[in-house]
Amino acid sequence: MDLGMIGLGRMGSSMVRRLLVAGHRCVVHDVRRESVEWLQRDGAKGAFSLSELVRQLPAPRSVWLMLPAGVVDDTLRDLAALLEPGDTIIEGGNSHYRDDLRRAAELRERGLHYVDVGVSGGVWGQERGYCLMIGGEPGPVHRLHSIFSALAPGVSAAPRTPGREGPPSPAEQGWLHCGPNGAGHFVKMVHNGIEYSLMAAYAEGLAVLHHANVGRHPPKADAETAPLREPRAYQYDFHLPDVVEVWRRGSVIGSWLLDLTAQALGRNPELSDFSGRVSDSGEGRWTQQAAIDEGVPTPVLASALYSRFTSQGEADFANKVQSAMRFAFGGHLEKKGGG
Amino acid sequence: MDLGMIGLGRMGSSMVRRLLVAGHRCVVHDVRRESVEWLQRDGAKGAFSLSELVRQLPAPRSVWLMLPAGVVDDTLRDLAALLEPGDTIIEGGNSHYRDDLRRAAELRERGLHYVDVGVSGGVWGQERGYCLMIGGEPGPVHRLHSIFSALAPGVSAAPRTPGREGPPSPAEQGWLHCGPNGAGHFVKMVHNGIEYSLMAAYAEGLAVLHHANVGRHPPKADAETAPLREPRAYQYDFHLPDVVEVWRRGSVIGSWLLDLTAQALGRNPELSDFSGRVSDSGEGRWTQQAAIDEGVPTPVLASALYSRFTSQGEADFANKVQSAMRFAFGGHLEKKGGG
Amino acid sequence: MDLGMIGLGRMGSSMVRRLLVAGHRCVVHDVRRESVEWLQRDGAKGAFSLSELVRQLPAPRSVWLMLPAGVVDDTLRDLAALLEPGDTIIEGGNSHYRDDLRRAAELRERGLHYVDVGVSGGVWGQERGYCLMIGGEPGPVHRLHSIFSALAPGVSAAPRTPGREGPPSPAEQGWLHCGPNGAGHFVKMVHNGIEYSLMAAYAEGLAVLHHANVGRHPPKADAETAPLREPRAYQYDFHLPDVVEVWRRGSVIGSWLLDLTAQALGRNPELSDFSGRVSDSGEGRWTQQAAIDEGVPTPVLASALYSRFTSQGEADFANKVQSAMRFAFGGHLEKKGGG
Amino acid sequence: MDLGMIGLGRMGSSMVRRLLVAGHRCVVHDVRRESVEWLQRDGAKGAFSLSELVRQLPAPRSVWLMLPAGVVDDTLRDLAALLEPGDTIIEGGNSHYRDDLRRAAELRERGLHYVDVGVSGGVWGQERGYCLMIGGEPGPVHRLHSIFSALAPGVSAAPRTPGREGPPSPAEQGWLHCGPNGAGHFVKMVHNGIEYSLMAAYAEGLAVLHHANVGRHPPKADAETAPLREPRAYQYDFHLPDVVEVWRRGSVIGSWLLDLTAQALGRNPELSDFSGRVSDSGEGRWTQQAAIDEGVPTPVLASALYSRFTSQGEADFANKVQSAMRFAFGGHLEKKGGG
Repeated sequence: MDLGMIGLGRMGSSMVRRLLVAGHRCVVHDVRRESVEWLQRDGAKGAFSLSELVRQLPAPRSVWLMLPAGVVDDTLRDLAALLEPGDTIIEGGNSHYRDDLRRAAELRERGLHYVDVGVSGGVWGQERGYCLMIGGEPGPVHRLHSIFSALAPGVSAAPRTPGREGPPSPAEQGWLHCGPNGAGHFVKMVHNGIEYSLMAAYAEGLAVLHHANVGRHPPKADAETAPLREPRAYQYDFHLPDVVEVWRRGSVIGSWLLDLTAQALGRNPELSDFSGRVSDSGEGRWTQQAAIDEGVPTPVLASALYSRFTSQGEADFANKVQSAMRFAFGGHLEKKGGG
Repeated sequence: MDLGMIGLGRMGSSMVRRLLVAGHRCVVHDVRRESVEWLQRDGAKGAFSLSELVRQLPAPRSVWLMLPAGVVDDTLRDLAALLEPGDTIIEGGNSHYRDDLRRAAELRERGLHYVDVGVSGGVWGQERGYCLMIGGEPGPVHRLHSIFSALAPGVSAAPRTPGREGPPSPAEQGWLHCGPNGAGHFVKMVHNGIEYSLMAAYAEGLAVLHHANVGRHPPKADAETAPLREPRAYQYDFHLPDVVEVWRRGSVIGSWLLDLTAQALGRNPELSDFSGRVSDSGEGRWTQQAAIDEGVPTPVLASALYSRFTSQGEADFANKVQSAMRFAFGGHLEKKGGG
Repeated sequence: MDLGMIGLGRMGSSMVRRLLVAGHRCVVHDVRRESVEWLQRDGAKGAFSLSELVRQLPAPRSVWLMLPAGVVDDTLRDLAALLEPGDTIIEGGNSHYRDDLRRAAELRERGLHYVDVGVSGGVWGQERGYCLMIGGEPGPVHRLHSIFSALAPGVSAAPRTPGREGPPSPAEQGWLHCGPNGAGHFVKMVHNGIEYSLMAAYAEGLAVLHHANVGRHPPKADAETAPLREPRAYQYDFHLPDVVEVWRRGSVIGSWLLDLTAQALGRNPELSDFSGRVSDSGEGRWTQQAAIDEGVPTPVLASALYSRFTSQGEADFANKVQSAMRFAFGGHLEKKGGG
Repeated sequence: MDLGMIGLGRMGSSMVRRLLVAGHRCVVHDVRRESVEWLQRDGAKGAFSLSELVRQLPAPRSVWLMLPAGVVDDTLRDLAALLEPGDTIIEGGNSHYRDDLRRAAELRERGLHYVDVGVSGGVWGQERGYCLMIGGEPGPVHRLHSIFSALAPGVSAAPRTPGREGPPSPAEQGWLHCGPNGAGHFVKMVHNGIEYSLMAAYAEGLAVLHHANVGRHPPKADAETAPLREPRAYQYDFHLPDVVEVWRRGSVIGSWLLDLTAQALGRNPELSDFSGRVSDSGEGRWTQQAAIDEGVPTPVLASALYSRFTSQGEADFANKVQSAMRFAFGGHLEKKGGG
């Protein structure tokens, strides 16, 4: 079918390529002219303005936005002004699901449909397919069936779950209509909240292994620092690329993230090309805020999020407060330098 | 080769079966006579005492212990008295790595070798193979090569990590000599620490989805309880078996644990056959204690562990202290019943 | 001066009594007729409707609301319709500061002033005085100076902070104009976030002492449970009322909460009159949500909040998910009963 | 009575001065000759070797050690060789309570008594008195009664707990015989675990207030970073010295730590003379390890401890692992610079 795609960054352009391969017709637009031209060479129809994009699509139109969260609302407003009743806008970026609720209501007044899609898959999606979590009215979601099928990995991407029978459901193909508007980004939000914690779990465990030789060079004891009680129990030099590799087969903790970690550690066991600063992109934050509204305890998810904040330097003031207290009651001047 | 196996519970007996299939000769012993007899039918040689087991093995002997942690030391002592210099004991249970260090030193004085093996794979291992994390001297570990190979899943169990070349290393087959004594159980300990957190991460995320309909029936506000600020944002009825299923394909959070969760939710979406109590078996605790000795922050791992303690009722006294404070400063009597 | 008070629960009625003692004139209203009558006996003027209350106050009027969060907006609307430009409404309940921002803007359009006040002090406030955290325009806040002074504990409630000089500032008397609208409830929100964690910190520490005799009756070891490694190190029977008492003098952790804990433990060292369920009232939640918006890590505050959620039974589904996983990969059936 | 004091650092020398003022006779020793000479000027008898100290004390001797944890065992061994049966060694430093158990057993074989004392009070103790948590046999503890009384703050240091009657108990004077050997340091250990969390609770709350103006200059949104959803809700410039000051009177969170924080913020509201690195001295770590042995959840205490580890740079490797994963699945290069 015909699909307009606005936003041709890493994700948007890869998705278009996957759709083209599957035989869909894509009209593409981006504020960067060269991004459009690159995809033209791959078979997409280029559009150098929103109106040009709209003109090239047959009604009822389906236009997919794959934009940074900060510019979605402006683009939506401009695009909606060009569309006709019955057309559908699909928002596939990192939107907050509450924005989906608001936007869907606004567009509904103009006869437009809104579908929110949480997309997971990253840079591997063009090849592996994308996991799609979808919210919206049944009609427009149904109409986009073949697009979702083409983007999703397909049923062969994982062994069938025992107990599942009959023709594979969309969920088994890698796309799911999760519920009404906002449902897609809600599920994606929680997905990312989980993702942060899975990453942190592996990372913390590997750090414990990485420092398992601390007994060789125990930190110097002073009035402030307690001596390590059993240095001889911390004399291990683990080769992390091999440890991660062995966990990939037969263990309970095998996963795709672990596969990727094996690759990264294989290239550079000390990971010295990274600084230790970990960004966060919104969903992890919103998952916490939803958990709190629901009154559901999520201490593991929160810990992973706060570790990222701390890596960004945001614990500094709180730490200074504690040092100030320590100085006030104990005359402690903090040591300089490492551990 | 010939191997003695002591302890024929779920894990020990499955491992023997896998070894028999691979052509190894196993002499098996358990305090429960019928456990021995069952494996005799599968081709193992039965031994109804430790001395009978030792007698049936050619020197240098290799005897694998697969016992509850609480009885390992007694069995080791009795067994060591029956063995000869050059023999090897393999401890494959849930031992603390510090016990490995102590035992290896004690056995070394008698000319015996000690190899510690952390085994992951659970009830699926007989079919999938076991992930083996091994500590000990190079000689005895090398001599057991064919046993480890037979137990491990083999290289085909996962796609090869890009960058790995040449004949597959043991790690790529699912077994790894991690270092000197204790190294095997150290790596297994951290493995389980990670496992707890991966489980908790999925579980917490699914709980946020499960309660995403809290806006339909918001808890009654009173002087104590703040009203839910936006009930309309929590009106989602997610079908968790499908959500988990869709995540299995193409998403960043795919894993074997997720596959198992899909099965469990498929059978019973409310999981009403479980009570909410989650046991812990030692390794998660020891991982924290090691992290603390090393001075490495592991907030995510700790949160998962403490959630298990709490599920076991162990937060009750601390909660009562807080209720007592609330009553003391605010006259608050805690509400009865849910939420 | 003259003040109207609406809401004569535990807090509102005590505040009126403290104001009456200080010589202020209070017109009081509550939906429960008897609450009004009780305060009439103490010298307040009773009002059995909002309009009666407004009629009895000279312009420009000051009306203080001390109501459950869920009914504030309705009362505000009804009251605003009866007031005149130049009048001031003071909201002293557990409002979210974002509601203050909204209400202040709405009332401003009608010429009315809005002052938000976070009040700490609980049932002891009538005697000790209340700590007041205030947000609003300078004019109305200034006009209420004598009310705030009468409610606050006064400068003698704590030793002067070294470095403070000259006549005591309002902060040194126990009330503070924190900033524009919302600032009062923002500071109170964070105050309560801190309060939850202080409570949890004492509670967790006392729980560690309470269980320091676990080595006398170590849990039975089985395949699931690791034995306690050093039972002889956990043989202490601490008498918590005395431990808390000794901490009250000379230690770094002395506090008013500790004083109250000493009283509670003195009455009942096992705290057996509490069930282990700890309510939360909103501010702890909002503090987290603000921290997340700000990107500031607050792991300690979050842990205390989530422990309360868990005490309310809200971790049950997540725990069941974990038990289901454990059963799926290990065939583990959770143990019944304690620890 | 006569007391030997070994270790004349900040704590030891202040304690001697307080004892001298109370009329006790102190023989003092330190490896730094000038530390001995300073206290000689204050009335102590100087000893420039352990044997000189022992010679100057009448039997049965009482010798108090106030030394860095790393040198206690060596000093104990040398001292014990000089003492006679019936003498008592008091260890008042930051010892692990398990070391107390071991030492007490060793000294008992030589007829020597061992008393472990956890001391809180910091640099203020000389003036305010020290909170003393004591473990050991009843006899030696009883014999030291007057020393403990002189060091403790005394009953007037806090208002009497309602319900306490009769002559004030030692706990009400600020010293407590907590139980057999190790009990003193166990209680002190937990005391410090609590202390870390109280400090972190205030610190995190103040950080939330400190960043409440983030809406004025919201971080730039990009594909990675979600825009702040309501910048107008974060426009507050709180003056923290005043906020902390107002909390000192009438609020639920008043404490001595808060008093000290008010002083520190009063001197430098930005706390710019601190770097953000917070040391830890052992007890916080041991409290966690005890909690884990006991199976008692202490998520708040753990979070405070791990925040300190992180401030020391110990999360770096785990953070790099997460960045490596992010790069592997999403092609994300971490941003440089702040938040």
